[in-house]
Amino acid sequence: MDSATFRLLGHQFVDWITDYRQRLETLPVMSQAKPGDIRACFPKTPPAVGGRLKEVLAVLEKDVMPGITHWNHPSFFAYFPSNTSYASILADIVASGLGVQGMSWQTSPAATELEEVVMDWLRQMVGLSAAWTGVIHDSASTATLCSLLCARERASGYSQNSKGLQSGEAPLVVYASDQGHSSIEKAALLAGFGRNYLRLIVTDDVHAVRMDLLKSAIESDLAAGLRPCAVVAAIGTTGTTALDPLKDIAELAKKYHLWLHVDAALAGTAMVLPECRWMWEGIEASDTLVLNPHKWMGVGFDFSAYFVRDVQHLIRVMSTNPSYLRTAHDGEVKNFRDWHIPLGRRFRALKLWFFLMDVGVEGLQERIRRDLRNAQWFKAQVETLKEWELMAPVTLQTVCIRHVPEPMRGDEAALMRHNLEIARQINDSGKAYITPSVLKGRQMLRVSIGAETTERRHLEALWGDLQRFSSEE
Amino acid sequence: MDSATFRLLGHQFVDWITDYRQRLETLPVMSQAKPGDIRACFPKTPPAVGGRLKEVLAVLEKDVMPGITHWNHPSFFAYFPSNTSYASILADIVASGLGVQGMSWQTSPAATELEEVVMDWLRQMVGLSAAWTGVIHDSASTATLCSLLCARERASGYSQNSKGLQSGEAPLVVYASDQGHSSIEKAALLAGFGRNYLRLIVTDDVHAVRMDLLKSAIESDLAAGLRPCAVVAAIGTTGTTALDPLKDIAELAKKYHLWLHVDAALAGTAMVLPECRWMWEGIEASDTLVLNPHKWMGVGFDFSAYFVRDVQHLIRVMSTNPSYLRTAHDGEVKNFRDWHIPLGRRFRALKLWFFLMDVGVEGLQERIRRDLRNAQWFKAQVETLKEWELMAPVTLQTVCIRHVPEPMRGDEAALMRHNLEIARQINDSGKAYITPSVLKGRQMLRVSIGAETTERRHLEALWGDLQRFSSEE
Repeated sequence: MDSATFRLLGHQFVDWITDYRQRLETLPVMSQAKPGDIRACFPKTPPAVGGRLKEVLAVLEKDVMPGITHWNHPSFFAYFPSNTSYASILADIVASGLGVQGMSWQTSPAATELEEVVMDWLRQMVGLSAAWTGVIHDSASTATLCSLLCARERASGYSQNSKGLQSGEAPLVVYASDQGHSSIEKAALLAGFGRNYLRLIVTDDVHAVRMDLLKSAIESDLAAGLRPCAVVAAIGTTGTTALDPLKDIAELAKKYHLWLHVDAALAGTAMVLPECRWMWEGIEASDTLVLNPHKWMGVGFDFSAYFVRDVQHLIRVMSTNPSYLRTAHDGEVKNFRDWHIPLGRRFRALKLWFFLMDVGVEGLQERIRRDLRNAQWFKAQVETLKEWELMAPVTLQTVCIRHVPEPMRGDEAALMRHNLEIARQINDSGKAYITPSVLKGRQMLRVSIGAETTERRHLEALWGDLQRFSSEE
Repeated sequence: MDSATFRLLGHQFVDWITDYRQRLETLPVMSQAKPGDIRACFPKTPPAVGGRLKEVLAVLEKDVMPGITHWNHPSFFAYFPSNTSYASILADIVASGLGVQGMSWQTSPAATELEEVVMDWLRQMVGLSAAWTGVIHDSASTATLCSLLCARERASGYSQNSKGLQSGEAPLVVYASDQGHSSIEKAALLAGFGRNYLRLIVTDDVHAVRMDLLKSAIESDLAAGLRPCAVVAAIGTTGTTALDPLKDIAELAKKYHLWLHVDAALAGTAMVLPECRWMWEGIEASDTLVLNPHKWMGVGFDFSAYFVRDVQHLIRVMSTNPSYLRTAHDGEVKNFRDWHIPLGRRFRALKLWFFLMDVGVEGLQERIRRDLRNAQWFKAQVETLKEWELMAPVTLQTVCIRHVPEPMRGDEAALMRHNLEIARQINDSGKAYITPSVLKGRQMLRVSIGAETTERRHLEALWGDLQRFSSEE
């Protein structure tokens, strides 16, 4: 493709995206496609001859769009808000257009240094002390894996340089809440700890980890000759945004020399508000922290912010230093390839820079407060009607509810079917998208608020639909 | 930002990227920035108030560009070609603009199904049988880690569901070439094997793994009561694109029940040419394979193609299935979140689709052949001059050379200084960028050919500069 064609098509695609965003609200939120529908639109073999990019827009419109679930739709209340702001899209144009690799400082100094700048901005924005240093990861799953690897290596005296986890020494143990994200379990298993040495601690009635049980688990492991190694605290669990008692966990971690990793993937965004920071009191006593600007904040995926206090330890665990990656400036600069698992790196710092230049910290705070108010409004509606139950405290922007018609009260199986059917009707209607989820054996409807374009009226519409479908059903 | 502003700025950024690509050849390839230069251009605190995105273009131009190393420059011969084609950039506009999460089928069916389509196209393009299934990973490092985790779990009977690597059973051992990529070592260490159980097998005089040594390593480990677990074969090592004898390794792997992972990160692109496929004879007897369309091929980073034969095994190792991720269609569809480490996924399939629609398989083949011819031409020049040495066979597009002035012959320390100085002069000149690298204790200059815009004249210029700097030095 020559430059003139790129310029022309570039404008066309920007226009197409602009038009898409403008008509977003008119589209069904959840794709109504059936398995295989989209695949069937494409040929089974690759195009032998090129020059066909001009066909793509029409195919996108006709064959791809029916298979899109619209995460930036104002009535997207499923999973978690995953806002890709306009500013982010612009930053991605630049990142892709420059096409640089930021694996080492020298492979593009600007990629490394702008990342240092914006990650330090973010550190300040969420009220962390200067003892923390940030780096961009792809996802919280990967960041949490890195944390458990750091924990493993600290507890084992850098076993990876000798026998790894295959030393036959007393097993290392990891602790987390039974409401923690699935990525914690995945990370512990991939890091080689084994399910037998992962303790998912039972939570209390607000779904926060029970300190008495955590403490007794650690002590009985010690008594059994095992080696407690790491604890993961959730600030905002995935199911209900429950808050583990971080300060207490930090004290325990200190006493038993546990690595403390904090998963604030979604809730970290709320820490941009000073009035929310009580939620992670104790954070400064943690070792590592992940929060995802690519969720509620507005920086398009992927952009996980991983903060660590002991950079040298992270590098010692993650670094390899072959000759073909060495450069003249090693030692004076950061080489972010040694701060995580992948080697290659996109120029993702641009996204946070563009985003903040566009909204500013105050603008972002305003939007987060709007979402918190919307969640409280929604909660208040639910509380007005006897047949609706709140399943968990509304800490942030997630409201977990279920419909309990009088005749079904106490019949969990019937309630499950009933609430699943409500979710199915809402989602199939295309008017909104919510996540049906199970909380300690009870079916709930999870309403996760915080798309950039979600206003009160979208919640009013959802609440109306929930009532209608629940009574019709 | 409102839609009108996005449309306007979107056009401006597309124009800016187009202009950038057009003047690329006039820019110094390697950034001439000094540590801290770029960081110093930015304020130490985030913008409190937004609405400032219009300033960004000027800052990009003035403060960021001096810190950019131009990976798409026609005289970029460092590391590996990392082509971000125009088509890729357009696809990224769409991916970012749609802003969908492809973690599960239902979270955007089109993201999953288009990925199935294009990964199957790619499978056909590199001549793999239908026994392989592909999935997009972020990088070869992550893919290789997944392979070693799959190996670990197969050899241990899914130890992650019990004691992990902490069972005290006979240690598992991993084998690879001492010329393998650093990510193999990193993966083995992160997966918990431990350096004591990683065997980096010495290579022969063309830098391929020595089968006699591999076999005796396995046998002596068995004799010592260890459990050989996995072998990684490099089809195209990073240093010199050496080819491990895959067919022989596959036979050995079969005999000793080793997991066989093939790292063809760069060289996999060459397999689009039928005449190159002899290079990976034996591939069908391997278990997993990674090749990076985001390198030489032209699909912008990140886009690693990970191919596996036993999908169910991969899923069993990588999957967690919490209630909030379950959907009505699980079981009938692919949920790619369970095919790798991260949970979230960008809509990266668009990049390969756009790219192939633009160039077609035949166009791609033509470009790869051009690069191979350029490498052979460059090799021929080197061979004409007595003071220049080829350090390795030119298998593909990488030419490894050094300058050996008669007075320095045999003095490795002097040759190292001399060749490092040549590289420094080339790179500091801004006219080209090559990688100085050490091969078995000997300093070499690595010329990695294959940027999309690299023509013969760029190599002629490089060859002229190499001769000039080597005689001046």
